[in-house]
Amino acid sequence: MTDLPTAADETPDYRRRCRESFARQPILATLKATLTVPEPGLAIVEIPHDPGLLQQTGFFHAGVAATIADSAGGFAALSLLPPGSEVLAAEFKINYLAPGRGERLRATGRCIKAGRTLSICTVAVHALDGGREVHTAQMQQTVMRIAEPA
Amino acid sequence: MTDLPTAADETPDYRRRCRESFARQPILATLKATLTVPEPGLAIVEIPHDPGLLQQTGFFHAGVAATIADSAGGFAALSLLPPGSEVLAAEFKINYLAPGRGERLRATGRCIKAGRTLSICTVAVHALDGGREVHTAQMQQTVMRIAEPA
Amino acid sequence: MTDLPTAADETPDYRRRCRESFARQPILATLKATLTVPEPGLAIVEIPHDPGLLQQTGFFHAGVAATIADSAGGFAALSLLPPGSEVLAAEFKINYLAPGRGERLRATGRCIKAGRTLSICTVAVHALDGGREVHTAQMQQTVMRIAEPA
Amino acid sequence: MTDLPTAADETPDYRRRCRESFARQPILATLKATLTVPEPGLAIVEIPHDPGLLQQTGFFHAGVAATIADSAGGFAALSLLPPGSEVLAAEFKINYLAPGRGERLRATGRCIKAGRTLSICTVAVHALDGGREVHTAQMQQTVMRIAEPA
Repeated sequence: MTDLPTAADETPDYRRRCRESFARQPILATLKATLTVPEPGLAIVEIPHDPGLLQQTGFFHAGVAATIADSAGGFAALSLLPPGSEVLAAEFKINYLAPGRGERLRATGRCIKAGRTLSICTVAVHALDGGREVHTAQMQQTVMRIAEPA
Repeated sequence: MTDLPTAADETPDYRRRCRESFARQPILATLKATLTVPEPGLAIVEIPHDPGLLQQTGFFHAGVAATIADSAGGFAALSLLPPGSEVLAAEFKINYLAPGRGERLRATGRCIKAGRTLSICTVAVHALDGGREVHTAQMQQTVMRIAEPA
Repeated sequence: MTDLPTAADETPDYRRRCRESFARQPILATLKATLTVPEPGLAIVEIPHDPGLLQQTGFFHAGVAATIADSAGGFAALSLLPPGSEVLAAEFKINYLAPGRGERLRATGRCIKAGRTLSICTVAVHALDGGREVHTAQMQQTVMRIAEPA
Repeated sequence: MTDLPTAADETPDYRRRCRESFARQPILATLKATLTVPEPGLAIVEIPHDPGLLQQTGFFHAGVAATIADSAGGFAALSLLPPGSEVLAAEFKINYLAPGRGERLRATGRCIKAGRTLSICTVAVHALDGGREVHTAQMQQTVMRIAEPA
Protein backbone atom coordinates (compact mmCIF):
# COMPACT_ATOMS: atom_id res chain seq x y z
CA MET A 1 0.00 0.00 0.00
CA THR A 2 1.53 3.23 -1.16
CA ASP A 3 1.09 6.25 1.08
CA LEU A 4 -0.92 9.09 -0.30
CA PRO A 5 0.20 12.65 0.20
CA THR A 6 -1.96 14.14 2.92
CA ALA A 7 -0.58 17.66 2.90
CA ALA A 8 -3.07 20.48 3.21
CA ASP A 9 -3.09 21.22 -0.50
CA GLU A 10 -4.14 17.64 -1.20
CA THR A 11 -7.22 17.80 0.99
CA PRO A 12 -8.81 21.16 0.16
CA ASP A 13 -12.45 21.48 0.99
CA TYR A 14 -12.39 18.25 2.96
CA ARG A 15 -15.40 19.41 4.99
CA ARG A 16 -17.42 20.28 1.92
CA ARG A 17 -16.56 16.97 0.25
CA CYS A 18 -17.65 15.03 3.33
CA ARG A 19 -20.85 17.06 3.65
CA GLU A 20 -21.74 16.37 0.02
CA SER A 21 -21.15 12.64 0.40
CA PHE A 22 -23.17 12.71 3.62
CA ALA A 23 -26.07 14.44 1.86
CA ARG A 24 -26.19 11.73 -0.81
CA GLN A 25 -26.82 8.96 1.75
CA PRO A 26 -30.52 8.49 2.53
CA ILE A 27 -29.81 6.18 5.46
CA LEU A 28 -28.08 8.97 7.35
CA ALA A 29 -31.22 11.10 7.03
CA THR A 30 -33.32 8.12 8.10
CA LEU A 31 -31.19 7.86 11.25
CA LYS A 32 -31.31 11.67 11.80
CA ALA A 33 -27.53 11.61 11.84
CA THR A 34 -25.29 14.65 12.08
CA LEU A 35 -21.70 14.84 10.84
CA THR A 36 -18.74 16.84 12.13
CA VAL A 37 -15.27 16.75 10.56
CA PRO A 38 -13.05 18.68 13.00
CA GLU A 39 -9.87 18.04 11.03
CA PRO A 40 -8.65 15.86 8.16
CA GLY A 41 -8.68 12.23 9.30
CA LEU A 42 -11.21 12.72 12.11
CA ALA A 43 -14.99 12.47 11.69
CA ILE A 44 -17.88 12.27 14.15
CA VAL A 45 -21.33 10.90 13.36
CA GLU A 46 -24.04 11.21 16.00
CA ILE A 47 -27.67 10.08 16.18
CA PRO A 48 -30.46 10.69 18.67
CA HIS A 49 -32.33 7.98 20.53
CA ASP A 50 -35.14 6.48 18.48
CA PRO A 51 -37.45 3.71 19.73
CA GLY A 52 -37.39 2.18 16.25
CA LEU A 53 -33.67 1.42 16.45
CA LEU A 54 -33.64 -0.73 19.59
CA GLN A 55 -33.14 -4.46 20.13
CA GLN A 56 -34.77 -6.82 22.59
CA THR A 57 -33.22 -5.47 25.78
CA GLY A 58 -33.98 -1.82 25.03
CA PHE A 59 -30.53 -0.79 23.83
CA PHE A 60 -29.50 0.53 20.43
CA HIS A 61 -29.20 -2.51 18.15
CA ALA A 62 -25.63 -3.61 17.46
CA GLY A 63 -26.24 -2.95 13.78
CA VAL A 64 -27.08 0.69 14.44
CA ALA A 65 -23.81 1.25 16.27
CA ALA A 66 -22.05 -0.53 13.39
CA THR A 67 -23.82 1.67 10.82
CA ILE A 68 -22.76 4.99 12.31
CA ALA A 69 -19.28 3.67 13.12
CA ASP A 70 -18.85 2.55 9.52
CA SER A 71 -19.99 6.00 8.36
CA ALA A 72 -17.66 7.86 10.73
CA GLY A 73 -14.69 5.78 9.56
CA GLY A 74 -15.64 6.30 5.93
CA PHE A 75 -15.75 10.09 6.34
CA ALA A 76 -12.48 10.10 8.31
CA ALA A 77 -10.83 8.33 5.37
CA LEU A 78 -12.57 10.45 2.71
CA SER A 79 -11.37 13.66 4.36
CA LEU A 80 -7.75 12.61 3.72
CA LEU A 81 -8.20 11.49 0.12
CA PRO A 82 -7.74 13.62 -2.98
CA PRO A 83 -10.73 15.49 -4.39
CA GLY A 84 -12.76 13.27 -6.71
CA SER A 85 -12.42 10.27 -4.42
CA GLU A 86 -15.34 8.28 -3.05
CA VAL A 87 -15.08 5.41 -0.57
CA LEU A 88 -16.88 2.14 0.07
CA ALA A 89 -16.62 -0.20 3.05
CA ALA A 90 -14.36 -3.13 2.20
CA GLU A 91 -14.72 -4.73 5.62
CA PHE A 92 -14.88 -3.95 9.32
CA LYS A 93 -14.81 -5.59 12.71
CA ILE A 94 -16.62 -4.29 15.77
CA ASN A 95 -16.50 -5.25 19.45
CA TYR A 96 -19.32 -4.39 21.82
CA LEU A 97 -17.98 -3.23 25.19
CA ALA A 98 -21.08 -2.07 27.07
CA PRO A 99 -24.79 -1.65 26.41
CA GLY A 100 -25.62 1.17 24.00
CA ARG A 101 -28.22 2.97 26.09
CA GLY A 102 -29.05 6.65 26.33
CA GLU A 103 -30.17 9.80 24.54
CA ARG A 104 -27.55 9.76 21.82
CA LEU A 105 -25.02 7.47 20.14
CA ARG A 106 -21.79 9.01 18.85
CA ALA A 107 -19.14 7.43 16.60
CA THR A 108 -15.70 9.05 16.41
CA GLY A 109 -13.61 7.78 13.50
CA ARG A 110 -9.90 8.29 12.96
CA CYS A 111 -8.04 7.27 9.82
CA ILE A 112 -4.74 5.69 10.87
CA LYS A 113 -3.57 4.96 7.32
CA ALA A 114 -4.70 6.73 4.15
CA GLY A 115 -3.70 4.62 1.16
CA ARG A 116 -4.07 4.88 -2.59
CA THR A 117 -6.40 1.87 -2.61
CA LEU A 118 -7.15 0.95 1.01
CA SER A 119 -7.44 3.15 4.07
CA ILE A 120 -7.62 1.86 7.64
CA CYS A 121 -9.64 3.51 10.40
CA THR A 122 -10.43 2.94 14.05
CA VAL A 123 -13.77 4.12 15.43
CA ALA A 124 -14.93 4.50 19.03
CA VAL A 125 -18.69 4.52 19.72
CA HIS A 126 -19.97 6.22 22.86
CA ALA A 127 -23.46 6.23 24.34
CA LEU A 128 -24.45 9.52 25.94
CA ASP A 129 -26.63 8.59 28.88
CA GLY A 130 -27.77 11.28 31.31
CA GLY A 131 -24.52 13.19 31.29
CA ARG A 132 -22.31 10.09 31.23
CA GLU A 133 -20.34 8.95 28.19
CA VAL A 134 -19.99 5.19 27.97
CA HIS A 135 -17.57 3.58 25.50
CA THR A 136 -20.01 1.09 24.01
CA ALA A 137 -18.23 -0.25 20.91
CA GLN A 138 -14.91 -0.18 19.06
CA MET A 139 -14.43 -0.76 15.32
CA GLN A 140 -11.43 -1.42 13.08
CA GLN A 141 -12.25 -0.85 9.43
CA THR A 142 -10.91 -0.95 5.88
CA VAL A 143 -12.36 1.39 3.27
CA MET A 144 -11.65 1.20 -0.43
CA ARG A 145 -11.22 4.25 -2.62
CA ILE A 146 -13.32 4.34 -5.79
CA ALA A 147 -13.93 6.99 -8.41
CA GLU A 148 -16.63 9.43 -7.42
CA PRO A 149 -19.90 8.63 -9.21
CA ALA A 150 -20.51 11.04 -12.08
CA MET B 1 -15.35 -23.14 25.75
CA THR B 2 -17.42 -26.09 26.82
CA ASP B 3 -19.78 -27.58 24.29
CA LEU B 4 -23.44 -27.41 25.04
CA PRO B 5 -25.68 -30.36 24.38
CA THR B 6 -27.62 -29.63 21.24
CA ALA B 7 -29.79 -32.71 21.11
CA ALA B 8 -33.38 -32.23 20.15
CA ASP B 9 -34.64 -32.29 23.72
CA GLU B 10 -32.38 -29.39 24.57
CA THR B 11 -33.78 -27.12 21.90
CA PRO B 12 -37.54 -27.58 22.11
CA ASP B 13 -39.61 -24.83 20.67
CA TYR B 14 -36.59 -23.25 19.06
CA ARG B 15 -38.77 -21.62 16.43
CA ARG B 16 -41.12 -20.14 19.03
CA ARG B 17 -38.22 -18.84 21.13
CA CYS B 18 -36.67 -17.17 18.08
CA ARG B 19 -40.01 -15.68 17.03
CA GLU B 20 -40.54 -14.22 20.49
CA SER B 21 -37.07 -12.65 20.57
CA PHE B 22 -37.66 -11.33 17.05
CA ALA B 23 -40.95 -9.73 18.10
CA ARG B 24 -39.25 -7.86 20.95
CA GLN B 25 -36.83 -6.06 18.60
CA PRO B 26 -38.28 -2.81 17.23
CA ILE B 27 -35.49 -2.38 14.71
CA LEU B 28 -36.55 -5.55 12.90
CA ALA B 29 -40.03 -4.10 12.46
CA THR B 30 -38.49 -0.81 11.31
CA LEU B 31 -36.59 -2.72 8.63
CA LYS B 32 -39.72 -4.78 7.72
CA ALA B 33 -37.63 -7.89 8.34
CA THR B 34 -38.90 -11.45 8.21
CA LEU B 35 -37.37 -14.41 10.04
CA THR B 36 -37.21 -18.08 9.11
CA VAL B 37 -35.55 -20.75 11.25
CA PRO B 38 -35.54 -23.89 9.07
CA GLU B 39 -33.64 -25.98 11.61
CA PRO B 40 -31.68 -25.51 14.84
CA GLY B 41 -28.52 -23.56 14.07
CA LEU B 42 -29.78 -22.02 10.83
CA ALA B 43 -31.68 -18.71 10.61
CA ILE B 44 -32.61 -16.44 7.70
CA VAL B 45 -33.47 -12.75 8.01
CA GLU B 46 -34.71 -10.94 4.91
CA ILE B 47 -35.68 -7.34 4.19
CA PRO B 48 -37.26 -5.59 1.21
CA HIS B 49 -35.68 -2.71 -0.69
CA ASP B 50 -36.32 0.64 0.98
CA PRO B 51 -35.04 3.95 -0.40
CA GLY B 52 -34.34 5.09 3.17
CA LEU B 53 -31.69 2.41 3.69
CA LEU B 54 -29.33 3.27 0.84
CA GLN B 55 -25.90 4.87 0.72
CA GLN B 56 -24.40 7.33 -1.74
CA THR B 57 -24.12 4.97 -4.72
CA GLY B 58 -27.69 3.66 -4.44
CA PHE B 59 -26.89 0.34 -2.78
CA PHE B 60 -28.01 -0.93 0.61
CA HIS B 61 -25.75 0.73 3.20
CA ALA B 62 -23.04 -1.55 4.61
CA GLY B 63 -24.56 -1.05 8.05
CA VAL B 64 -27.91 -2.45 6.91
CA ALA B 65 -26.29 -5.64 5.65
CA ALA B 66 -24.40 -5.83 8.95
CA THR B 67 -27.61 -5.35 10.93
CA ILE B 68 -29.53 -8.21 9.33
CA ALA B 69 -26.43 -10.42 9.28
CA ASP B 70 -25.91 -9.81 12.99
CA SER B 71 -29.57 -10.69 13.60
CA ALA B 72 -29.44 -13.85 11.52
CA GLY B 73 -26.35 -15.05 13.38
CA GLY B 74 -27.92 -14.23 16.72
CA PHE B 75 -31.03 -16.28 15.94
CA ALA B 76 -28.95 -19.16 14.59
CA ALA B 77 -27.12 -19.28 17.92
CA LEU B 78 -30.26 -18.76 20.01
CA SER B 79 -31.99 -21.68 18.31
CA LEU B 80 -29.29 -24.03 19.67
CA LEU B 81 -29.22 -22.71 23.23
CA PRO B 82 -31.29 -23.97 26.13
CA PRO B 83 -34.69 -22.41 26.83
CA GLY B 84 -34.34 -19.28 28.94
CA SER B 85 -31.27 -18.10 27.04
CA GLU B 86 -30.97 -14.73 25.38
CA VAL B 87 -28.02 -13.58 23.26
CA LEU B 88 -26.17 -10.34 22.62
CA ALA B 89 -23.57 -9.54 19.97
CA ALA B 90 -20.09 -9.70 21.48
CA GLU B 91 -18.35 -8.83 18.21
CA PHE B 92 -18.45 -9.47 14.50
CA LYS B 93 -16.46 -8.94 11.33
CA ILE B 94 -17.96 -8.47 7.90
CA ASN B 95 -16.47 -8.36 4.40
CA TYR B 96 -18.28 -6.74 1.49
CA LEU B 97 -17.94 -8.80 -1.68
CA ALA B 98 -20.22 -7.07 -4.17
CA PRO B 99 -22.65 -4.16 -4.22
CA GLY B 100 -25.86 -4.83 -2.28
CA ARG B 101 -28.37 -3.87 -4.94
CA GLY B 102 -31.82 -5.23 -5.68
CA GLU B 103 -35.33 -5.90 -4.41
CA ARG B 104 -34.36 -7.77 -1.27
CA LEU B 105 -31.42 -8.44 1.02
CA ARG B 106 -31.18 -11.85 2.72
CA ALA B 107 -28.87 -12.94 5.53
CA THR B 108 -28.39 -16.67 6.16
CA GLY B 109 -26.74 -17.42 9.50
CA ARG B 110 -25.27 -20.72 10.64
CA CYS B 111 -23.98 -21.41 14.14
CA ILE B 112 -20.72 -23.36 13.83
CA LYS B 113 -20.11 -23.58 17.58
CA ALA B 114 -22.72 -23.34 20.33
CA GLY B 115 -20.97 -22.70 23.62
CA ARG B 116 -22.03 -22.21 27.21
CA THR B 117 -20.81 -18.59 27.11
CA LEU B 118 -19.82 -17.81 23.53
CA SER B 119 -21.25 -19.07 20.26
CA ILE B 120 -19.66 -18.55 16.86
CA CYS B 121 -21.62 -18.05 13.65
CA THR B 122 -20.94 -17.41 9.98
CA VAL B 123 -23.45 -15.46 7.93
CA ALA B 124 -23.77 -15.03 4.16
CA VAL B 125 -25.67 -12.01 2.82
CA HIS B 126 -27.21 -12.18 -0.63
CA ALA B 127 -28.83 -9.43 -2.70
CA LEU B 128 -31.80 -10.59 -4.75
CA ASP B 129 -31.69 -8.55 -7.92
CA GLY B 130 -34.10 -9.33 -10.76
CA GLY B 131 -33.93 -13.08 -10.35
CA ARG B 132 -30.20 -13.16 -9.62
CA GLU B 133 -28.73 -13.89 -6.17
CA VAL B 134 -25.47 -12.07 -5.55
CA HIS B 135 -23.28 -12.95 -2.56
CA THR B 136 -22.80 -9.43 -1.28
CA ALA B 137 -21.28 -9.84 2.20
CA GLN B 138 -19.87 -12.45 4.57
CA MET B 139 -19.80 -12.19 8.38
CA GLN B 140 -18.03 -14.10 11.16
CA GLN B 141 -19.58 -13.38 14.54
CA THR B 142 -19.41 -14.10 18.27
CA VAL B 143 -22.57 -13.96 20.34
CA MET B 144 -22.68 -14.09 24.12
CA ARG B 145 -25.35 -15.94 26.06
CA ILE B 146 -27.10 -13.95 28.79
CA ALA B 147 -30.10 -14.68 30.98
CA GLU B 148 -33.39 -13.90 29.28
CA PRO B 149 -34.77 -10.57 30.51
CA ALA B 150 -37.59 -11.09 33.03
CA MET C 1 -14.57 -5.14 -6.92
CA THR C 2 -14.53 -6.50 -10.43
CA ASP C 3 -14.66 -10.24 -10.83
CA LEU C 4 -11.69 -11.89 -12.37
CA PRO C 5 -12.11 -14.59 -14.95
CA THR C 6 -11.41 -17.88 -13.24
CA ALA C 7 -11.81 -20.20 -16.18
CA ALA C 8 -9.28 -23.00 -16.48
CA ASP C 9 -7.20 -21.18 -19.07
CA GLU C 10 -6.74 -18.29 -16.65
CA THR C 11 -5.26 -20.43 -13.89
CA PRO C 12 -2.81 -22.70 -15.66
CA ASP C 13 -0.15 -24.24 -13.50
CA TYR C 14 -1.90 -23.09 -10.37
CA ARG C 15 -0.23 -25.88 -8.38
CA ARG C 16 3.23 -24.98 -9.63
CA ARG C 17 2.69 -21.29 -8.92
CA CYS C 18 1.55 -22.06 -5.37
CA ARG C 19 4.49 -24.44 -4.81
CA GLU C 20 6.96 -21.80 -5.96
CA SER C 21 5.48 -19.15 -3.67
CA PHE C 22 5.49 -21.69 -0.83
CA ALA C 23 9.18 -22.47 -1.43
CA ARG C 24 10.10 -18.79 -1.15
CA GLN C 25 8.69 -18.49 2.40
CA PRO C 26 11.23 -19.41 5.07
CA ILE C 27 8.63 -19.42 7.85
CA LEU C 28 6.81 -22.34 6.22
CA ALA C 29 10.02 -24.37 6.34
CA THR C 30 10.56 -23.29 9.95
CA LEU C 31 7.09 -24.65 10.78
CA LYS C 32 7.73 -27.85 8.73
CA ALA C 33 4.56 -27.02 6.82
CA THR C 34 3.23 -28.96 3.84
CA LEU C 35 0.96 -27.56 1.14
CA THR C 36 -1.74 -29.22 -0.93
CA VAL C 37 -3.81 -27.44 -3.59
CA PRO C 38 -6.49 -29.95 -4.60
CA GLU C 39 -8.24 -27.55 -6.97
CA PRO C 40 -8.22 -23.84 -7.85
CA GLY C 41 -9.55 -21.88 -4.87
CA LEU C 42 -8.83 -24.57 -2.27
CA ALA C 43 -5.52 -24.92 -0.37
CA ILE C 44 -4.47 -26.96 2.66
CA VAL C 45 -1.49 -26.16 4.89
CA GLU C 46 -0.58 -28.65 7.61
CA ILE C 47 2.09 -28.70 10.33
CA PRO C 48 3.23 -31.34 12.81
CA HIS C 49 3.22 -30.89 16.58
CA ASP C 50 6.31 -29.08 17.83
CA PRO C 51 6.96 -28.32 21.51
CA GLY C 52 8.42 -24.97 20.49
CA LEU C 53 5.06 -23.73 19.13
CA LEU C 54 2.94 -24.12 22.25
CA GLN C 55 1.45 -21.61 24.69
CA GLN C 56 1.03 -21.76 28.45
CA THR C 57 -1.66 -24.47 28.56
CA GLY C 58 0.16 -26.85 26.21
CA PHE C 59 -1.86 -26.14 23.08
CA PHE C 60 -0.66 -24.72 19.77
CA HIS C 61 -0.35 -20.95 20.26
CA ALA C 62 -3.18 -18.92 18.72
CA GLY C 63 -0.60 -17.20 16.52
CA VAL C 64 0.51 -20.51 15.01
CA ALA C 65 -3.03 -21.37 13.98
CA ALA C 66 -3.35 -17.86 12.57
CA THR C 67 -0.08 -18.23 10.63
CA ILE C 68 -1.03 -21.42 8.82
CA ALA C 69 -4.62 -20.22 8.29
CA ASP C 70 -3.32 -17.00 6.75
CA SER C 71 -1.06 -19.06 4.49
CA ALA C 72 -3.82 -21.44 3.42
CA GLY C 73 -6.10 -18.54 2.54
CA GLY C 74 -3.31 -16.82 0.63
CA PHE C 75 -2.62 -19.90 -1.49
CA ALA C 76 -6.35 -20.47 -2.09
CA ALA C 77 -6.56 -16.94 -3.49
CA LEU C 78 -3.29 -17.19 -5.43
CA SER C 79 -4.46 -20.37 -7.17
CA LEU C 80 -7.34 -18.41 -8.75
CA LEU C 81 -5.34 -15.38 -9.85
CA PRO C 82 -3.65 -14.90 -13.21
CA PRO C 83 -0.03 -16.03 -13.65
CA GLY C 84 2.36 -13.33 -12.47
CA SER C 85 0.26 -12.48 -9.43
CA GLU C 86 1.55 -12.51 -5.89
CA VAL C 87 -0.57 -11.91 -2.78
CA LEU C 88 -0.11 -10.27 0.61
CA ALA C 89 -2.37 -10.37 3.65
CA ALA C 90 -4.43 -7.18 3.86
CA GLU C 91 -6.25 -8.25 7.03
CA PHE C 92 -7.88 -11.22 8.70
CA LYS C 93 -10.05 -12.14 11.63
CA ILE C 94 -9.90 -15.45 13.47
CA ASN C 95 -12.10 -17.05 16.11
CA TYR C 96 -10.82 -19.82 18.38
CA LEU C 97 -13.44 -22.53 18.85
CA ALA C 98 -11.63 -25.24 20.80
CA PRO C 99 -8.12 -25.92 22.11
CA GLY C 100 -5.59 -26.66 19.36
CA ARG C 101 -4.14 -29.85 20.75
CA GLY C 102 -2.79 -32.92 19.00
CA GLU C 103 -0.27 -34.35 16.55
CA ARG C 104 -1.02 -32.02 13.67
CA LEU C 105 -2.72 -28.74 12.85
CA ARG C 106 -4.39 -28.36 9.44
CA ALA C 107 -5.73 -25.20 7.80
CA THR C 108 -8.14 -25.54 4.86
CA GLY C 109 -8.62 -22.32 2.93
CA ARG C 110 -11.29 -21.55 0.35
CA CYS C 111 -11.41 -18.41 -1.75
CA ILE C 112 -15.02 -17.20 -1.85
CA LYS C 113 -14.29 -14.15 -4.02
CA ALA C 114 -11.33 -13.68 -6.36
CA GLY C 115 -11.04 -10.01 -7.23
CA ARG C 116 -8.74 -7.89 -9.34
CA THR C 117 -7.43 -6.14 -6.22
CA LEU C 118 -8.90 -7.91 -3.19
CA SER C 119 -9.78 -11.56 -2.69
CA ILE C 120 -11.77 -12.91 0.25
CA CYS C 121 -11.20 -16.32 1.82
CA THR C 122 -12.55 -18.40 4.66
CA VAL C 123 -10.28 -20.86 6.42
CA ALA C 124 -11.11 -23.68 8.85
CA VAL C 125 -8.36 -24.94 11.17
CA HIS C 126 -8.57 -28.48 12.53
CA ALA C 127 -6.46 -30.15 15.20
CA LEU C 128 -5.77 -33.84 14.53
CA ASP C 129 -5.70 -35.48 17.92
CA GLY C 130 -5.47 -39.25 18.19
CA GLY C 131 -7.75 -39.98 15.27
CA ARG C 132 -10.18 -37.16 16.05
CA GLU C 133 -10.48 -33.95 14.02
CA VAL C 134 -11.44 -30.96 16.10
CA HIS C 135 -12.50 -27.69 14.47
CA THR C 136 -10.25 -25.41 16.48
CA ALA C 137 -10.37 -22.07 14.66
CA GLN C 138 -12.13 -20.22 11.84
CA MET C 139 -10.71 -17.32 9.82
CA GLN C 140 -12.16 -14.76 7.41
CA GLN C 141 -9.46 -13.03 5.42
CA THR C 142 -8.73 -10.41 2.75
CA VAL C 143 -5.67 -10.78 0.55
CA MET C 144 -4.37 -8.14 -1.81
CA ARG C 145 -2.94 -8.91 -5.22
CA ILE C 146 0.46 -7.40 -5.98
CA ALA C 147 2.89 -7.84 -8.86
CA GLU C 148 5.12 -10.86 -8.43
CA PRO C 149 8.56 -9.78 -7.20
CA ALA C 150 11.10 -9.83 -10.02
CA MET D 1 -20.12 -7.59 30.48
CA THR D 2 -19.63 -6.55 34.05
CA ASP D 3 -16.67 -4.30 34.77
CA LEU D 4 -13.99 -5.67 37.02
CA PRO D 5 -12.42 -3.52 39.68
CA THR D 6 -9.04 -2.48 38.42
CA ALA D 7 -7.83 -0.52 41.44
CA ALA D 8 -4.23 -1.03 42.47
CA ASP D 9 -5.10 -3.49 45.21
CA GLU D 10 -6.80 -5.73 42.70
CA THR D 11 -3.76 -6.06 40.47
CA PRO D 12 -0.87 -6.66 42.86
CA ASP D 13 2.18 -8.23 41.37
CA TYR D 14 0.86 -7.72 37.88
CA ARG D 15 4.40 -7.73 36.47
CA ARG D 16 5.30 -10.98 38.22
CA ARG D 17 2.09 -12.65 37.08
CA CYS D 18 2.73 -11.63 33.47
CA ARG D 19 6.36 -12.76 33.66
CA GLU D 20 5.29 -16.17 34.98
CA SER D 21 2.72 -16.65 32.21
CA PHE D 22 5.31 -15.51 29.68
CA ALA D 23 7.84 -18.06 30.98
CA ARG D 24 5.33 -20.90 30.51
CA GLN D 25 4.96 -20.23 26.77
CA PRO D 26 7.55 -22.07 24.69
CA ILE D 27 6.66 -20.18 21.52
CA LEU D 28 7.80 -16.90 23.05
CA ALA D 29 11.23 -18.43 23.70
CA THR D 30 11.26 -19.82 20.16
CA LEU D 31 10.67 -16.29 18.86
CA LYS D 32 13.31 -14.84 21.29
CA ALA D 33 10.58 -12.51 22.53
CA THR D 34 10.95 -10.05 25.40
CA LEU D 35 8.09 -8.70 27.51
CA THR D 36 7.68 -5.35 29.25
CA VAL D 37 4.62 -4.38 31.30
CA PRO D 38 5.07 -0.67 32.05
CA GLU D 39 1.75 -0.33 33.84
CA PRO D 40 -1.45 -2.33 34.34
CA GLY D 41 -3.26 -2.59 31.02
CA LEU D 42 -0.20 -1.95 28.86
CA ALA D 43 2.18 -4.66 27.62
CA ILE D 44 4.96 -4.69 25.01
CA VAL D 45 6.29 -7.81 23.27
CA GLU D 46 9.31 -7.44 21.01
CA ILE D 47 11.26 -9.87 18.81
CA PRO D 48 14.49 -9.57 16.82
CA HIS D 49 14.78 -10.16 13.09
CA ASP D 50 15.15 -13.84 12.24
CA PRO D 51 15.52 -15.15 8.67
CA GLY D 52 13.34 -18.12 9.61
CA LEU D 53 10.30 -15.91 10.22
CA LEU D 54 10.02 -14.23 6.83
CA GLN D 55 7.58 -14.62 3.94
CA GLN D 56 8.16 -14.53 0.21
CA THR D 57 8.97 -10.84 -0.13
CA GLY D 58 11.51 -10.78 2.72
CA PHE D 59 9.27 -9.23 5.37
CA PHE D 60 8.16 -10.70 8.69
CA HIS D 61 5.29 -13.09 7.91
CA ALA D 62 1.84 -11.72 8.75
CA GLY D 63 1.40 -14.60 11.19
CA VAL D 64 4.47 -13.55 13.16
CA ALA D 65 3.12 -10.04 13.65
CA ALA D 66 -0.20 -11.60 14.65
CA THR D 67 1.49 -13.92 17.14
CA ILE D 68 3.31 -11.19 19.07
CA ALA D 69 0.31 -8.84 18.84
CA ASP D 70 -1.92 -11.56 20.28
CA SER D 71 0.59 -12.07 23.08
CA ALA D 72 0.90 -8.36 23.87
CA GLY D 73 -2.88 -8.01 24.06
CA GLY D 74 -3.15 -11.08 26.26
CA PHE D 75 -0.61 -9.73 28.74
CA ALA D 76 -2.23 -6.29 28.72
CA ALA D 77 -5.51 -7.94 29.74
CA LEU D 78 -3.89 -10.31 32.23
CA SER D 79 -2.20 -7.43 34.04
CA LEU D 80 -5.63 -5.98 34.89
CA LEU D 81 -7.28 -9.21 36.02
CA PRO D 82 -7.38 -10.56 39.57
CA PRO D 83 -4.58 -12.88 40.74
CA GLY D 84 -5.31 -16.47 39.77
CA SER D 85 -6.60 -15.49 36.33
CA GLU D 86 -5.27 -16.87 33.07
CA VAL D 87 -6.35 -15.75 29.60
CA LEU D 88 -6.86 -17.36 26.20
CA ALA D 89 -7.45 -15.72 22.84
CA ALA D 90 -11.15 -15.81 21.97
CA GLU D 91 -10.69 -14.01 18.65
CA PHE D 92 -8.82 -11.18 17.01
CA LYS D 93 -8.69 -9.14 13.83
CA ILE D 94 -5.55 -7.62 12.38
CA ASN D 95 -4.93 -5.15 9.56
CA TYR D 96 -1.59 -4.89 7.81
CA LEU D 97 -0.66 -1.26 7.15
CA ALA D 98 2.90 -1.44 5.83
CA PRO D 99 5.56 -4.08 5.22
CA GLY D 100 7.06 -5.51 8.43
CA ARG D 101 10.72 -5.06 7.59
CA GLY D 102 13.66 -4.30 9.86
CA GLU D 103 15.76 -5.36 12.83
CA ARG D 104 12.93 -5.77 15.30
CA LEU D 105 9.16 -6.11 15.50
CA ARG D 106 7.36 -4.62 18.50
CA ALA D 107 3.74 -5.11 19.59
CA THR D 108 2.23 -2.65 22.08
CA GLY D 109 -1.04 -3.87 23.58
CA ARG D 110 -3.56 -1.83 25.56
CA CYS D 111 -6.58 -3.28 27.31
CA ILE D 112 -9.52 -0.95 26.67
CA LYS D 113 -12.05 -3.04 28.62
CA ALA D 114 -11.27 -5.53 31.39
CA GLY D 115 -14.30 -7.73 31.95
CA ARG D 116 -15.19 -10.62 34.20
CA THR D 117 -15.37 -12.96 31.21
CA LEU D 118 -14.16 -11.04 28.16
CA SER D 119 -11.54 -8.33 27.87
CA ILE D 120 -10.97 -6.22 24.77
CA CYS D 121 -7.56 -4.96 23.65
CA THR D 122 -6.07 -2.95 20.83
CA VAL D 123 -2.51 -3.62 19.73
CA ALA D 124 -0.20 -1.60 17.48
CA VAL D 125 2.71 -3.40 15.78
CA HIS D 126 5.76 -1.39 14.74
CA ALA D 127 8.75 -2.46 12.66
CA LEU D 128 12.04 -0.90 13.79
CA ASP D 129 14.02 -0.37 10.62
CA GLY D 130 17.32 1.50 10.76
CA GLY D 131 16.19 4.06 13.29
CA ARG D 132 12.70 4.43 11.83
CA GLU D 133 9.54 3.08 13.47
CA VAL D 134 6.90 2.03 10.97
CA HIS D 135 3.34 1.24 12.07
CA THR D 136 3.02 -2.09 10.31
CA ALA D 137 -0.12 -3.66 11.76
CA GLN D 138 -3.09 -2.95 14.03
CA MET D 139 -5.08 -5.56 15.98
CA GLN D 140 -8.39 -5.55 17.85
CA GLN D 141 -8.72 -8.56 20.13
CA THR D 142 -10.98 -10.36 22.59
CA VAL D 143 -9.42 -12.48 25.34
CA MET D 144 -11.33 -14.79 27.63
CA ARG D 145 -10.52 -15.22 31.30
CA ILE D 146 -10.09 -18.81 32.48
CA ALA D 147 -8.93 -20.31 35.75
CA GLU D 148 -5.18 -20.52 36.02
CA PRO D 149 -3.98 -24.07 35.35
CA ALA D 150 -3.02 -25.82 38.59
